[in-house]
Amino acid sequence: MAPSRQGTVYLVGAGPGDPELLTVRAAGLVRGAGTLVYDDLVGAGVLELAPAGCARLYVGKRSGRHSIAQGQINALLVRLARAGHDVVRLKGGDPFVFGRGAEEAEALAEAGIRFEVVPGITAASGMAARAGIPLTHRDLAQACLFVTAHLKEGSAPLDWPMLARPRQTVVFYMGAGSIDRICAELAAHGMDGATPAAVVQNATLPGQVEIAGTVATLPALAQAARIASPALVVVGQSVGLRARLRGQGSATPAMPRSAAPPASRVPVPQAATIS
Amino acid sequence: MAPSRQGTVYLVGAGPGDPELLTVRAAGLVRGAGTLVYDDLVGAGVLELAPAGCARLYVGKRSGRHSIAQGQINALLVRLARAGHDVVRLKGGDPFVFGRGAEEAEALAEAGIRFEVVPGITAASGMAARAGIPLTHRDLAQACLFVTAHLKEGSAPLDWPMLARPRQTVVFYMGAGSIDRICAELAAHGMDGATPAAVVQNATLPGQVEIAGTVATLPALAQAARIASPALVVVGQSVGLRARLRGQGSATPAMPRSAAPPASRVPVPQAATIS
Repeated sequence: MAPSRQGTVYLVGAGPGDPELLTVRAAGLVRGAGTLVYDDLVGAGVLELAPAGCARLYVGKRSGRHSIAQGQINALLVRLARAGHDVVRLKGGDPFVFGRGAEEAEALAEAGIRFEVVPGITAASGMAARAGIPLTHRDLAQACLFVTAHLKEGSAPLDWPMLARPRQTVVFYMGAGSIDRICAELAAHGMDGATPAAVVQNATLPGQVEIAGTVATLPALAQAARIASPALVVVGQSVGLRARLRGQGSATPAMPRSAAPPASRVPVPQAATIS
Repeated sequence: MAPSRQGTVYLVGAGPGDPELLTVRAAGLVRGAGTLVYDDLVGAGVLELAPAGCARLYVGKRSGRHSIAQGQINALLVRLARAGHDVVRLKGGDPFVFGRGAEEAEALAEAGIRFEVVPGITAASGMAARAGIPLTHRDLAQACLFVTAHLKEGSAPLDWPMLARPRQTVVFYMGAGSIDRICAELAAHGMDGATPAAVVQNATLPGQVEIAGTVATLPALAQAARIASPALVVVGQSVGLRARLRGQGSATPAMPRSAAPPASRVPVPQAATIS
Protein backbone atom coordinates (compact mmCIF):
# COMPACT_ATOMS: atom_id res chain seq x y z
CA MET A 1 0.00 0.00 0.00
CA ALA A 2 3.02 2.27 -0.27
CA PRO A 3 2.04 5.41 -2.19
CA SER A 4 3.58 5.67 -5.61
CA ARG A 5 4.19 9.39 -5.25
CA GLN A 6 6.34 11.00 -2.58
CA GLY A 7 5.25 14.45 -1.46
CA THR A 8 7.24 17.67 -1.51
CA VAL A 9 7.83 19.81 1.57
CA TYR A 10 7.73 23.59 1.12
CA LEU A 11 9.62 25.37 3.88
CA VAL A 12 7.77 28.64 3.59
CA GLY A 13 8.51 31.95 5.26
CA ALA A 14 5.24 33.26 6.67
CA GLY A 15 6.68 36.73 7.19
CA PRO A 16 6.22 38.86 10.29
CA GLY A 17 2.47 38.32 10.68
CA ASP A 18 0.52 40.56 8.31
CA PRO A 19 -0.72 38.34 5.45
CA GLU A 20 -0.09 41.19 2.98
CA LEU A 21 3.59 40.65 3.71
CA LEU A 22 3.62 37.07 2.47
CA THR A 23 5.40 36.68 -0.83
CA VAL A 24 3.24 36.01 -3.86
CA ARG A 25 4.67 32.49 -3.99
CA ALA A 26 4.04 31.82 -0.30
CA ALA A 27 0.45 33.08 -0.56
CA GLY A 28 -0.15 30.78 -3.53
CA LEU A 29 1.22 27.81 -1.63
CA VAL A 30 -0.91 28.50 1.45
CA ARG A 31 -4.06 29.02 -0.63
CA GLY A 32 -3.52 25.67 -2.31
CA ALA A 33 -2.30 23.74 0.70
CA GLY A 34 -3.62 20.31 1.55
CA THR A 35 -1.46 19.96 4.66
CA LEU A 36 -0.13 22.85 6.73
CA VAL A 37 2.38 22.45 9.54
CA TYR A 38 2.84 25.64 11.57
CA ASP A 39 3.91 27.04 14.90
CA ASP A 40 3.43 30.07 17.11
CA LEU A 41 4.92 32.88 15.09
CA VAL A 42 2.68 32.38 12.06
CA GLY A 43 0.05 35.13 11.88
CA ALA A 44 -3.61 34.16 12.22
CA GLY A 45 -4.37 36.05 9.02
CA VAL A 46 -1.89 33.88 7.17
CA LEU A 47 -3.53 30.67 8.38
CA GLU A 48 -6.93 31.98 7.29
CA LEU A 49 -5.77 31.91 3.67
CA ALA A 50 -5.64 28.12 3.71
CA PRO A 51 -8.59 26.29 2.16
CA ALA A 52 -11.33 24.89 4.36
CA GLY A 53 -10.41 21.25 3.89
CA CYS A 54 -6.73 21.72 4.65
CA ALA A 55 -5.23 19.62 7.43
CA ARG A 56 -3.62 22.01 9.93
CA LEU A 57 -1.00 20.61 12.24
CA TYR A 58 0.14 22.83 15.08
CA VAL A 59 3.62 22.05 16.34
CA GLY A 60 4.24 25.14 18.45
CA LYS A 61 5.05 25.73 22.06
CA ARG A 62 2.17 27.74 23.42
CA SER A 63 2.57 28.47 27.08
CA GLY A 64 1.21 25.73 29.29
CA ARG A 65 1.67 23.08 26.65
CA HIS A 66 4.42 20.60 26.43
CA SER A 67 6.84 21.69 23.79
CA ILE A 68 7.51 19.45 20.82
CA ALA A 69 11.09 18.51 20.18
CA GLN A 70 12.58 19.67 16.90
CA GLY A 71 13.40 16.06 16.06
CA GLN A 72 9.70 15.16 16.25
CA ILE A 73 8.83 17.98 13.86
CA ASN A 74 11.52 16.84 11.43
CA ALA A 75 10.21 13.28 11.61
CA LEU A 76 6.64 14.46 11.04
CA LEU A 77 7.62 16.30 7.85
CA VAL A 78 9.44 13.25 6.54
CA ARG A 79 6.55 10.94 7.43
CA LEU A 80 3.95 13.14 5.75
CA ALA A 81 5.99 13.44 2.55
CA ARG A 82 6.62 9.69 2.47
CA ALA A 83 2.88 9.15 2.82
CA GLY A 84 2.43 11.16 -0.36
CA HIS A 85 1.38 14.51 1.10
CA ASP A 86 2.64 17.82 -0.19
CA VAL A 87 3.33 19.78 2.96
CA VAL A 88 3.41 23.54 3.42
CA ARG A 89 5.62 24.02 6.46
CA LEU A 90 4.99 27.61 7.55
CA LYS A 91 7.64 29.28 9.64
CA GLY A 92 7.36 32.80 11.07
CA GLY A 93 9.56 35.31 9.24
CA ASP A 94 12.17 33.72 6.98
CA PRO A 95 12.92 29.99 7.19
CA PHE A 96 16.67 30.58 7.19
CA VAL A 97 16.80 33.38 9.78
CA PHE A 98 16.45 31.70 13.19
CA GLY A 99 13.50 29.38 13.74
CA ARG A 100 15.57 26.28 12.95
CA GLY A 101 14.53 25.98 9.33
CA ALA A 102 18.06 24.87 8.51
CA GLU A 103 17.62 21.81 10.68
CA GLU A 104 14.37 20.91 8.96
CA ALA A 105 15.99 21.29 5.55
CA GLU A 106 18.87 19.08 6.65
CA ALA A 107 16.48 16.40 7.88
CA LEU A 108 14.57 16.46 4.61
CA ALA A 109 17.77 16.32 2.56
CA GLU A 110 19.03 13.41 4.61
CA ALA A 111 15.77 11.52 4.11
CA GLY A 112 15.84 12.20 0.38
CA ILE A 113 12.60 14.22 0.48
CA ARG A 114 12.12 16.80 -2.22
CA PHE A 115 11.83 20.27 -0.73
CA GLU A 116 11.84 23.93 -1.64
CA VAL A 117 12.70 26.88 0.59
CA VAL A 118 10.53 29.95 0.03
CA PRO A 119 12.02 33.05 1.65
CA GLY A 120 9.94 35.35 3.84
CA ILE A 121 10.11 38.87 5.17
CA THR A 122 12.13 38.46 8.31
CA ALA A 123 10.68 40.07 11.42
CA ALA A 124 13.40 42.73 11.47
CA SER A 125 12.47 43.99 7.99
CA GLY A 126 8.77 44.08 8.81
CA MET A 127 9.45 45.93 12.02
CA ALA A 128 11.82 48.36 10.31
CA ALA A 129 9.28 49.33 7.65
CA ARG A 130 6.35 49.73 10.02
CA ALA A 131 8.19 51.42 12.86
CA GLY A 132 10.31 53.71 10.66
CA ILE A 133 13.67 52.31 11.75
CA PRO A 134 16.12 51.81 8.87
CA LEU A 135 18.35 48.77 9.34
CA THR A 136 21.16 50.45 7.46
CA HIS A 137 21.83 54.12 6.85
CA ARG A 138 24.63 55.74 4.95
CA ASP A 139 25.63 58.01 7.81
CA LEU A 140 24.54 56.00 10.84
CA ALA A 141 24.72 52.25 10.25
CA GLN A 142 27.00 50.55 7.76
CA ALA A 143 25.94 47.08 8.85
CA CYS A 144 23.01 45.29 10.39
CA LEU A 145 23.20 42.26 12.61
CA PHE A 146 20.52 39.78 13.59
CA VAL A 147 21.06 37.76 16.74
CA THR A 148 18.79 35.77 18.99
CA ALA A 149 18.39 36.76 22.60
CA HIS A 150 16.77 33.43 23.38
CA LEU A 151 19.78 31.22 23.78
CA LYS A 152 19.50 27.50 24.18
CA GLU A 153 21.30 25.80 26.98
CA GLY A 154 24.77 24.95 25.86
CA SER A 155 24.98 27.56 23.11
CA ALA A 156 27.84 29.97 23.07
CA PRO A 157 27.24 33.29 24.82
CA LEU A 158 26.52 36.34 22.69
CA ASP A 159 29.55 38.24 21.49
CA TRP A 160 28.82 41.42 23.46
CA PRO A 161 31.98 43.35 22.49
CA MET A 162 30.95 42.92 18.85
CA LEU A 163 27.33 43.86 19.49
CA ALA A 164 28.33 47.00 21.38
CA ARG A 165 30.27 48.47 18.46
CA PRO A 166 29.13 51.72 16.85
CA ARG A 167 27.79 52.35 13.32
CA GLN A 168 25.55 49.31 13.09
CA THR A 169 21.96 48.33 13.81
CA VAL A 170 21.54 45.25 16.00
CA VAL A 171 18.22 43.41 16.09
CA PHE A 172 17.71 40.91 18.89
CA TYR A 173 15.06 38.35 17.98
CA MET A 174 12.99 36.88 20.80
CA GLY A 175 14.08 39.77 22.95
CA ALA A 176 11.08 40.30 25.21
CA GLY A 177 12.47 38.50 28.23
CA SER A 178 16.00 39.81 27.85
CA ILE A 179 15.68 43.58 27.60
CA ASP A 180 17.34 44.26 30.93
CA ARG A 181 20.24 41.97 30.17
CA ILE A 182 20.71 43.24 26.63
CA CYS A 183 20.92 46.86 27.73
CA ALA A 184 23.13 46.07 30.71
CA GLU A 185 25.60 44.03 28.67
CA LEU A 186 25.79 46.61 25.88
CA ALA A 187 26.52 49.35 28.41
CA ALA A 188 29.05 47.16 30.22
CA HIS A 189 30.83 46.60 26.91
CA GLY A 190 31.23 50.27 26.14
CA MET A 191 28.07 51.33 24.36
CA ASP A 192 26.97 54.86 25.19
CA GLY A 193 23.84 54.74 27.37
CA ALA A 194 22.34 57.46 25.17
CA THR A 195 22.31 55.15 22.11
CA PRO A 196 18.74 54.92 20.80
CA ALA A 197 17.02 51.60 21.48
CA ALA A 198 13.49 50.32 21.01
CA VAL A 199 11.40 47.24 21.54
CA VAL A 200 8.62 46.36 19.11
CA GLN A 201 6.02 43.79 20.09
CA ASN A 202 3.77 42.12 17.48
CA ALA A 203 5.55 43.86 14.61
CA THR A 204 3.28 44.45 11.57
CA LEU A 205 0.17 43.18 13.37
CA PRO A 206 -2.73 45.38 14.42
CA GLY A 207 -1.54 45.09 18.01
CA GLN A 208 1.96 46.39 17.23
CA VAL A 209 3.43 48.16 20.27
CA GLU A 210 6.58 50.28 20.01
CA ILE A 211 8.52 51.51 22.99
CA ALA A 212 11.48 53.73 22.22
CA GLY A 213 14.15 55.12 24.47
CA THR A 214 17.84 54.59 24.93
CA VAL A 215 20.05 51.79 26.12
CA ALA A 216 19.86 53.45 29.54
CA THR A 217 16.10 54.00 29.64
CA LEU A 218 14.57 51.15 27.67
CA PRO A 219 14.42 48.53 30.44
CA ALA A 220 12.21 50.67 32.68
CA LEU A 221 10.04 51.85 29.78
CA ALA A 222 9.51 48.30 28.56
CA GLN A 223 8.66 47.07 32.02
CA ALA A 224 6.13 49.87 32.50
CA ALA A 225 4.54 48.97 29.16
CA ARG A 226 4.48 45.26 30.08
CA ILE A 227 6.12 44.21 26.85
CA ALA A 228 5.68 40.50 26.15
CA SER A 229 6.58 38.02 23.42
CA PRO A 230 6.94 38.13 20.52
CA ALA A 231 9.16 41.19 20.48
CA LEU A 232 12.27 42.48 18.78
CA VAL A 233 14.80 44.70 20.50
CA VAL A 234 16.63 47.04 18.15
CA VAL A 235 19.65 49.14 19.06
CA GLY A 236 21.64 51.73 17.13
CA GLN A 237 21.69 55.33 15.95
CA SER A 238 19.17 54.65 13.17
CA VAL A 239 16.56 53.89 15.84
CA GLY A 240 16.65 57.63 16.52
CA LEU A 241 15.05 58.30 13.11
CA ARG A 242 11.87 56.53 14.17
CA ALA A 243 10.01 59.62 15.34
CA ARG A 244 10.57 61.27 11.95
CA LEU A 245 10.06 58.24 9.73
CA ARG A 246 6.82 56.91 11.09
CA GLY A 247 3.44 58.50 11.40
CA GLN A 248 3.49 59.61 7.77
CA GLY A 249 1.59 56.58 6.70
CA SER A 250 3.99 53.85 7.66
CA ALA A 251 1.85 52.51 10.45
CA THR A 252 -1.52 53.27 8.92
CA PRO A 253 -1.30 52.50 5.22
CA ALA A 254 -2.44 55.43 3.15
CA MET A 255 -4.41 53.27 0.78
CA PRO A 256 -6.73 50.33 1.22
CA ARG A 257 -4.83 47.12 1.57
CA SER A 258 -4.62 44.87 -1.47
CA ALA A 259 -6.11 47.63 -3.57
CA ALA A 260 -4.56 49.63 -6.33
CA PRO A 261 -3.58 53.22 -5.69
CA PRO A 262 -5.72 55.82 -7.43
CA ALA A 263 -4.49 56.00 -10.99
CA SER A 264 -2.43 59.07 -11.73
CA ARG A 265 -1.59 58.66 -15.36
CA VAL A 266 -0.98 62.33 -16.05
CA PRO A 267 2.27 62.63 -18.02
CA VAL A 268 5.17 63.78 -15.87
CA PRO A 269 7.30 65.72 -18.37
CA GLN A 270 9.36 67.46 -15.75
CA ALA A 271 10.80 64.11 -14.75
CA ALA A 272 11.46 62.73 -18.20
CA THR A 273 14.99 64.05 -18.35
CA ILE A 274 15.91 62.00 -15.31
CA SER A 275 16.08 58.70 -17.15
CA MET B 1 -3.41 75.48 -10.80
CA ALA B 2 -2.00 73.78 -7.69
CA PRO B 3 -3.52 70.32 -7.36
CA SER B 4 -5.84 69.94 -4.43
CA ARG B 5 -4.56 66.48 -3.63
CA GLN B 6 -1.00 65.63 -2.70
CA GLY B 7 0.21 62.20 -3.74
CA THR B 8 1.61 59.44 -1.55
CA VAL B 9 4.99 57.85 -2.12
CA TYR B 10 5.27 54.08 -1.56
CA LEU B 11 8.84 53.04 -0.87
CA VAL B 12 8.46 49.46 -1.99
CA GLY B 13 10.89 46.59 -1.66
CA ALA B 14 11.04 44.84 -5.04
CA GLY B 15 12.77 41.80 -3.56
CA PRO B 16 15.76 40.02 -5.08
CA GLY B 17 14.44 39.88 -8.65
CA ASP B 18 11.97 37.02 -9.08
CA PRO B 19 8.49 38.61 -9.20
CA GLU B 20 7.10 35.66 -7.21
CA LEU B 21 9.16 36.97 -4.30
CA LEU B 22 7.37 40.31 -4.18
CA THR B 23 5.09 40.64 -1.18
CA VAL B 24 1.37 40.51 -1.86
CA ARG B 25 1.17 44.19 -0.96
CA ALA B 26 4.05 45.18 -3.23
CA ALA B 27 2.59 43.22 -6.15
CA GLY B 28 -0.75 44.99 -5.67
CA LEU B 29 0.94 48.39 -5.63
CA VAL B 30 2.94 47.67 -8.80
CA ARG B 31 -0.12 46.30 -10.62
CA GLY B 32 -2.03 49.47 -9.82
CA ALA B 33 0.79 51.95 -10.29
CA GLY B 34 0.36 55.15 -12.25
CA THR B 35 3.94 56.27 -11.74
CA LEU B 36 6.90 53.97 -11.10
CA VAL B 37 10.36 55.19 -10.15
CA TYR B 38 12.96 52.41 -10.25
CA ASP B 39 16.63 51.64 -10.59
CA ASP B 40 18.97 48.87 -11.61
CA LEU B 41 18.34 46.17 -9.07
CA VAL B 42 14.62 45.88 -9.79
CA GLY B 43 13.90 42.68 -11.73
CA ALA B 44 12.52 42.94 -15.26
CA GLY B 45 9.71 40.56 -14.30
CA VAL B 46 8.67 42.94 -11.54
CA LEU B 47 8.44 45.90 -13.92
CA GLU B 48 6.33 43.84 -16.31
CA LEU B 49 3.57 43.69 -13.70
CA ALA B 50 2.91 47.42 -14.05
CA PRO B 51 -0.03 48.43 -16.23
CA ALA B 52 0.54 49.55 -19.80
CA GLY B 53 -0.19 53.22 -19.21
CA CYS B 54 2.09 53.55 -16.21
CA ALA B 55 4.79 56.23 -16.33
CA ARG B 56 8.14 54.51 -15.72
CA LEU B 57 11.00 56.65 -14.55
CA TYR B 58 14.42 55.05 -14.53
CA VAL B 59 16.83 56.64 -12.07
CA GLY B 60 19.58 54.03 -12.09
CA LYS B 61 23.23 54.03 -12.88
CA ARG B 62 23.65 51.71 -15.83
CA SER B 63 27.23 51.55 -16.97
CA GLY B 64 28.07 54.22 -19.50
CA ARG B 65 25.40 56.56 -18.24
CA HIS B 66 25.87 59.49 -15.98
CA SER B 67 24.74 58.54 -12.53
CA ILE B 68 21.95 60.46 -10.90
CA ALA B 69 22.68 61.98 -7.53
CA GLN B 70 20.59 60.74 -4.62
CA GLY B 71 19.48 64.31 -3.96
CA GLN B 72 17.94 64.49 -7.43
CA ILE B 73 16.00 61.30 -6.83
CA ASN B 74 14.74 62.62 -3.51
CA ALA B 75 13.67 65.87 -5.17
CA LEU B 76 11.91 63.97 -7.96
CA LEU B 77 9.84 61.98 -5.48
CA VAL B 78 8.82 65.13 -3.64
CA ARG B 79 7.97 66.94 -6.89
CA LEU B 80 5.84 64.09 -8.19
CA ALA B 81 3.89 63.81 -4.94
CA ARG B 82 3.35 67.58 -4.81
CA ALA B 83 2.01 67.42 -8.36
CA GLY B 84 -0.62 64.98 -7.13
CA HIS B 85 0.90 61.71 -8.28
CA ASP B 86 0.90 58.57 -6.21
CA VAL B 87 4.36 57.16 -6.73
CA VAL B 88 5.54 53.57 -6.41
CA ARG B 89 9.24 53.89 -5.72
CA LEU B 90 10.64 50.42 -6.33
CA LYS B 91 13.91 49.54 -4.69
CA GLY B 92 15.75 46.24 -5.13
CA GLY B 93 15.52 44.01 -2.06
CA ASP B 94 14.28 45.76 1.07
CA PRO B 95 14.04 49.58 1.18
CA PHE B 96 15.70 49.72 4.60
CA VAL B 97 18.62 47.34 3.90
CA PHE B 98 21.19 49.31 1.90
CA GLY B 99 19.99 51.08 -1.24
CA ARG B 100 19.57 54.40 0.57
CA GLY B 101 15.85 54.05 1.20
CA ALA B 102 16.36 55.70 4.57
CA GLU B 103 17.53 58.87 2.84
CA GLU B 104 14.47 58.92 0.61
CA ALA B 105 12.20 58.44 3.59
CA GLU B 106 13.94 61.27 5.41
CA ALA B 107 13.53 63.60 2.42
CA LEU B 108 9.83 62.76 2.17
CA ALA B 109 9.30 63.27 5.89
CA GLU B 110 11.10 66.60 5.75
CA ALA B 111 8.93 67.75 2.84
CA GLY B 112 5.76 66.65 4.63
CA ILE B 113 4.92 64.07 1.95
CA ARG B 114 2.80 61.13 3.02
CA PHE B 115 4.67 57.88 2.52
CA GLU B 116 4.58 54.21 3.37
CA VAL B 117 7.48 51.77 3.51
CA VAL B 118 6.68 48.28 2.19
CA PRO B 119 9.32 45.75 3.17
CA GLY B 120 10.86 43.39 0.64
CA ILE B 121 12.79 40.13 0.64
CA THR B 122 16.34 41.31 1.01
CA ALA B 123 18.82 39.82 -1.45
CA ALA B 124 20.51 37.78 1.27
CA SER B 125 17.26 35.95 2.12
CA GLY B 126 16.48 35.25 -1.52
CA MET B 127 19.99 33.96 -2.11
CA ALA B 128 19.89 31.85 1.05
CA ALA B 129 16.66 30.10 0.08
CA ARG B 130 17.63 29.42 -3.52
CA ALA B 131 21.25 28.47 -2.92
CA GLY B 132 20.60 26.39 0.21
CA ILE B 133 22.71 28.52 2.56
CA PRO B 134 21.05 29.13 5.94
CA LEU B 135 21.80 32.57 7.34
CA THR B 136 21.62 31.25 10.87
CA HIS B 137 22.05 27.75 12.17
CA ARG B 138 21.82 26.46 15.70
CA ASP B 139 25.23 24.80 15.61
CA LEU B 140 27.08 26.91 13.07
CA ALA B 141 25.91 30.53 13.03
CA GLN B 142 24.34 32.31 15.95
CA ALA B 143 24.18 35.61 14.11
CA CYS B 144 23.99 36.98 10.61
CA LEU B 145 25.48 40.25 9.43
CA PHE B 146 24.76 42.26 6.32
CA VAL B 147 27.40 44.73 5.16
CA THR B 148 28.09 46.49 1.91
CA ALA B 149 31.33 45.89 0.09
CA HIS B 150 30.72 48.91 -2.11
CA LEU B 151 31.86 51.69 0.14
CA LYS B 152 31.38 55.32 -0.74
CA GLU B 153 34.30 57.63 -0.59
CA GLY B 154 34.61 59.00 2.87
CA SER B 155 32.75 56.18 4.60
CA ALA B 156 34.34 54.37 7.46
CA PRO B 157 36.29 51.23 6.57
CA LEU B 158 34.69 47.87 7.24
CA ASP B 159 35.22 46.45 10.70
CA TRP B 160 37.30 43.45 9.58
CA PRO B 161 38.11 42.07 13.03
CA MET B 162 34.36 41.85 13.67
CA LEU B 163 33.60 40.31 10.28
CA ALA B 164 36.31 37.68 10.72
CA ARG B 165 34.79 36.25 13.91
CA PRO B 166 33.51 32.67 13.98
CA ARG B 167 29.95 31.37 14.44
CA GLN B 168 28.22 33.89 12.18
CA THR B 169 27.19 34.25 8.54
CA VAL B 170 28.37 37.42 6.83
CA VAL B 171 26.74 38.59 3.61
CA PHE B 172 28.55 41.26 1.61
CA TYR B 173 26.15 43.13 -0.66
CA MET B 174 27.53 44.51 -3.90
CA GLY B 175 30.44 42.15 -3.53
CA ALA B 176 31.32 41.33 -7.14
CA GLY B 177 34.24 43.73 -7.44
CA SER B 178 35.60 43.07 -3.97
CA ILE B 179 35.96 39.30 -3.68
CA ASP B 180 39.75 39.38 -3.58
CA ARG B 181 39.84 42.07 -0.96
CA ILE B 182 37.12 40.50 1.18
CA CYS B 183 38.88 37.15 1.32
CA ALA B 184 42.30 38.70 1.88
CA GLU B 185 41.10 40.92 4.72
CA LEU B 186 39.19 38.12 6.44
CA ALA B 187 42.27 35.89 6.30
CA ALA B 188 44.49 38.72 7.49
CA HIS B 189 42.18 39.21 10.47
CA GLY B 190 42.36 35.64 11.60
CA MET B 191 39.69 33.76 9.71
CA ASP B 192 40.65 30.20 8.79
CA GLY B 193 41.26 29.97 5.05
CA ALA B 194 39.21 26.77 5.01
CA THR B 195 36.05 28.65 6.05
CA PRO B 196 33.35 28.04 3.42
CA ALA B 197 32.61 31.03 1.17
CA ALA B 198 30.48 31.54 -1.91
CA VAL B 199 29.50 34.20 -4.39
CA VAL B 200 26.02 34.24 -5.89
CA GLN B 201 25.33 36.35 -8.96
CA ASN B 202 21.77 37.22 -10.01
CA ALA B 203 20.28 35.54 -6.96
CA THR B 204 16.75 34.17 -7.56
CA LEU B 205 16.81 35.01 -11.28
CA PRO B 206 16.96 32.45 -14.07
CA GLY B 207 20.60 33.39 -14.61
CA GLN B 208 21.60 32.69 -11.01
CA VAL B 209 25.25 31.61 -10.81
CA GLU B 210 26.73 30.12 -7.66
CA ILE B 211 30.43 29.64 -7.07
CA ALA B 212 31.39 27.96 -3.81
CA GLY B 213 34.75 27.40 -2.25
CA THR B 214 36.59 28.68 0.77
CA VAL B 215 38.03 31.98 1.86
CA ALA B 216 41.31 30.73 0.39
CA THR B 217 39.96 29.48 -2.92
CA LEU B 218 37.01 31.73 -3.76
CA PRO B 219 38.92 34.59 -5.46
CA ALA B 220 40.42 32.33 -8.15
CA LEU B 221 37.16 30.42 -8.64
CA ALA B 222 35.17 33.64 -9.03
CA GLN B 223 37.68 35.07 -11.46
CA ALA B 224 37.59 31.91 -13.57
CA ALA B 225 33.78 32.10 -13.62
CA ARG B 226 33.87 35.80 -14.55
CA ILE B 227 31.48 36.75 -11.77
CA ALA B 228 29.97 40.21 -12.33
CA SER B 229 27.43 42.47 -10.62
CA PRO B 230 25.01 42.08 -9.02
CA ALA B 231 26.48 39.54 -6.65
CA LEU B 232 26.50 38.67 -2.99
CA VAL B 233 29.50 37.20 -1.22
CA VAL B 234 28.62 34.99 1.73
CA VAL B 235 31.08 33.63 4.27
CA GLY B 236 30.67 31.26 7.21
CA GLN B 237 30.32 27.63 8.20
CA SER B 238 26.68 27.48 7.10
CA VAL B 239 27.83 28.03 3.51
CA GLY B 240 29.19 24.50 3.76
CA LEU B 241 25.62 23.14 3.90
CA ARG B 242 24.90 24.35 0.39
CA ALA B 243 25.78 21.13 -1.40
CA ARG B 244 23.31 19.23 0.78
CA LEU B 245 20.53 21.79 0.94
CA ARG B 246 20.15 22.64 -2.71
CA GLY B 247 19.31 20.47 -5.65
CA GLN B 248 16.33 18.94 -3.89
CA GLY B 249 14.02 21.40 -5.52
CA SER B 250 15.34 24.66 -4.16
CA ALA B 251 16.62 25.92 -7.46
CA THR B 252 14.00 24.34 -9.69
CA PRO B 253 10.68 24.67 -7.94
CA ALA B 254 8.94 21.33 -7.70
CA MET B 255 5.59 22.80 -8.67
CA PRO B 256 4.45 25.31 -11.24
CA ARG B 257 4.94 28.87 -10.09
CA SER B 258 1.87 30.74 -8.84
CA ALA B 259 -0.08 27.50 -8.93
CA ALA B 260 -1.51 25.50 -6.09
CA PRO B 261 0.16 22.26 -5.12
CA PRO B 262 -1.77 19.10 -5.94
CA ALA B 263 -4.37 18.74 -3.24
CA SER B 264 -3.58 16.05 -0.73
CA ARG B 265 -6.55 16.15 1.57
CA VAL B 266 -6.19 12.63 2.84
CA PRO B 267 -6.56 12.74 6.62
CA VAL B 268 -3.27 12.47 8.43
CA PRO B 269 -4.30 10.74 11.66
CA GLN B 270 -0.81 9.72 12.60
CA ALA B 271 0.08 13.36 13.04
CA ALA B 272 -2.99 14.47 14.94
CA THR B 273 -1.42 13.81 18.31
CA ILE B 274 1.28 16.35 17.57
CA SER B 275 -0.92 19.40 18.01
